[in-house]
Amino acid sequence: MKHFHYTKIDENKVDAFGSTGTTIRVFISEDEAPNFIMRRFEIKPLGQIGLHSHDWEHEIFILNGEVVLINENGDREKVSSGEFVFIPPNEPHGYINEGNETAAFICMVPKQTK
Amino acid sequence: MKHFHYTKIDENKVDAFGSTGTTIRVFISEDEAPNFIMRRFEIKPLGQIGLHSHDWEHEIFILNGEVVLINENGDREKVSSGEFVFIPPNEPHGYINEGNETAAFICMVPKQTK
Repeated sequence: MKHFHYTKIDENKVDAFGSTGTTIRVFISEDEAPNFIMRRFEIKPLGQIGLHSHDWEHEIFILNGEVVLINENGDREKVSSGEFVFIPPNEPHGYINEGNETAAFICMVPKQTK
Repeated sequence: MKHFHYTKIDENKVDAFGSTGTTIRVFISEDEAPNFIMRRFEIKPLGQIGLHSHDWEHEIFILNGEVVLINENGDREKVSSGEFVFIPPNEPHGYINEGNETAAFICMVPKQTK
């Protein structure tokens, strides 16, 4: 068993998809994880993760703040602390933090190197 | 995309392994999840999940409170809010809440019906 506080994990800037004000911490490496990876994201106020898609799902739990989820049609759905989010494979999605506090969420993905 | 607050999900008592004071909410069904399942547990003060093991891993994030993790040797490790926990496959583990507040955590498992 291993355990550690999230602040002990390297925090890296997310640059992909024109993202701004966003960081990621990966809790367990692809080498160690048998099946899936748990990551913790933070998006500062006015920060965003640009629209993108991939052939794997996201399972998300919002820890703090609120995030607006957008899709390829420009539809917007606000989710906030305590909410679970499921984004199916191949569904375009982006994130914007329009609130006044940093948003934080857990985002799980299947391991890519099985 | 689907999203909902955790309180909208059915909360069920955990009876297995001699558990007491513990409930589970399952965020997405085995039928819908492509690869893994996200669950939210609550353990009341003095509640516990008895020692058990299985051939799949746990990836856990502690949301609130603190939990004492125990193993088959009686070793004890306290984990608290903001901590990530990885329990490898086949490692016996149990949980006790010795604190004064309800502990809550996300616990991910691979889908069993692939």
